[in-house]
Amino acid sequence: MFVSRRQIRFADVDPAGIVFYPRYFEMINATVEDWFEHIGYGFGQMIRRDGYGVPLATIEVDFKRPSELDDWLDFTLDVTAMGGSSIQAAITARCKDEIRLIARPVLVFVKLEATRPVRIPDALRQKIEAYQRGQS
Amino acid sequence: MFVSRRQIRFADVDPAGIVFYPRYFEMINATVEDWFEHIGYGFGQMIRRDGYGVPLATIEVDFKRPSELDDWLDFTLDVTAMGGSSIQAAITARCKDEIRLIARPVLVFVKLEATRPVRIPDALRQKIEAYQRGQS
Amino acid sequence: MFVSRRQIRFADVDPAGIVFYPRYFEMINATVEDWFEHIGYGFGQMIRRDGYGVPLATIEVDFKRPSELDDWLDFTLDVTAMGGSSIQAAITARCKDEIRLIARPVLVFVKLEATRPVRIPDALRQKIEAYQRGQS
Amino acid sequence: MFVSRRQIRFADVDPAGIVFYPRYFEMINATVEDWFEHIGYGFGQMIRRDGYGVPLATIEVDFKRPSELDDWLDFTLDVTAMGGSSIQAAITARCKDEIRLIARPVLVFVKLEATRPVRIPDALRQKIEAYQRGQS
Repeated sequence: MFVSRRQIRFADVDPAGIVFYPRYFEMINATVEDWFEHIGYGFGQMIRRDGYGVPLATIEVDFKRPSELDDWLDFTLDVTAMGGSSIQAAITARCKDEIRLIARPVLVFVKLEATRPVRIPDALRQKIEAYQRGQS
Repeated sequence: MFVSRRQIRFADVDPAGIVFYPRYFEMINATVEDWFEHIGYGFGQMIRRDGYGVPLATIEVDFKRPSELDDWLDFTLDVTAMGGSSIQAAITARCKDEIRLIARPVLVFVKLEATRPVRIPDALRQKIEAYQRGQS
Repeated sequence: MFVSRRQIRFADVDPAGIVFYPRYFEMINATVEDWFEHIGYGFGQMIRRDGYGVPLATIEVDFKRPSELDDWLDFTLDVTAMGGSSIQAAITARCKDEIRLIARPVLVFVKLEATRPVRIPDALRQKIEAYQRGQS
Repeated sequence: MFVSRRQIRFADVDPAGIVFYPRYFEMINATVEDWFEHIGYGFGQMIRRDGYGVPLATIEVDFKRPSELDDWLDFTLDVTAMGGSSIQAAITARCKDEIRLIARPVLVFVKLEATRPVRIPDALRQKIEAYQRGQS
């Protein structure tokens, strides 16, 4: 099962002693990056070799509880829907069993030179569907 | 009228040549910070002198069009609702007349040592209401 | 005379209430970017149009005094030497008249596809020399 | 032996496809943070419980070779000297056996409320000396 773990470090924490929220979006982005690697299509291949990208169309985030220095967070990712060129996901960050945030991004698969949505290639669709079925 | 302007710099742009979205959240955060300064209650006073903070409860962002190196973005902020301890806002980023994103954060006013919502003090409520009426 | 001004914001400050030093390097980088724009060869042209870059070979930084939230810093840049493909600079950040840091970067002019130093083109050399003579 | 490993991610890489150098300083800072944890005095204790900090007095960095997306970097740290309130270190980042950078920071041990150097407490000196002798 896919989990992206990271520890809250000094760089992530604001003067109030809790995570500075733009840092959460770097963690969310890194979770997406780790997840593509997990299903077998890392950003090195996707972006540099193949010229695709996955910018965000929308995102909704519900911040449940603050996180502090040294907390370990586990980020999990569910694919909630896949369209022709879009992927809807739910990313949950937990510290032990406490939910810290739930993010619902919609990623769009694009050809980078055009920044225009393109159909998700079949090989990648199959990897995502395998993940949805719990087979990766 | 309140506008927070900033230019997209090299640090903001990803290998695909467009704004790396966690950077947008730093810009959104800076817009909120500039806006509190604009209405007369800057973070220096709020956080350091008075021990309050305004963490996010939720945020929704709709990314309309990508932004590129050297684009100048104008961020505006509307207060769409104010509760006992929460402030709902709509932040719009435009490049010239093109909308690049609309963010809808809900900020919660908290006492920092407790990280618990507290009622927005009357002096601040009046500043926010004056802004909503177009008087600041 | 070239000055790049910026205000220390919440995002720049660590839990100890002073600038988190990696943020200074973003400011130093932005100063270099602003300076190239000032002398007439912005990063949009240099990097995106012409395929050049200016990575660091070395940097030395002397942190004189800490900076705090809301401080306004003035960054100035002197070109202390120019070689075939390298530019030595001294960047000083001041708050009012107090020096906060002095950074001494050595930039190398490279062709991006090769990441190999190339001779600084004459048109750019002349812009840099004009700046050194105080004519831009 | 102390090693802080991290993979270069999309967030670290500039439009030219190599590490954006301010990101290296976040990695250097994280290495220092990991190292204090390694010797038994993590930032949670140092900063939050005890009110000390370790800002930089100076740093020199020699960037030997660029790093790219997905590279794994190993950061090691040698304590080259310890004064009354200062710690000189050499931090080396390697990808496999290739040195990518060498950073030479001088950290100053300070009491945070005063931002003034204080003598490194004996318990911490002993941890650092044990590390220097290769015993942690």
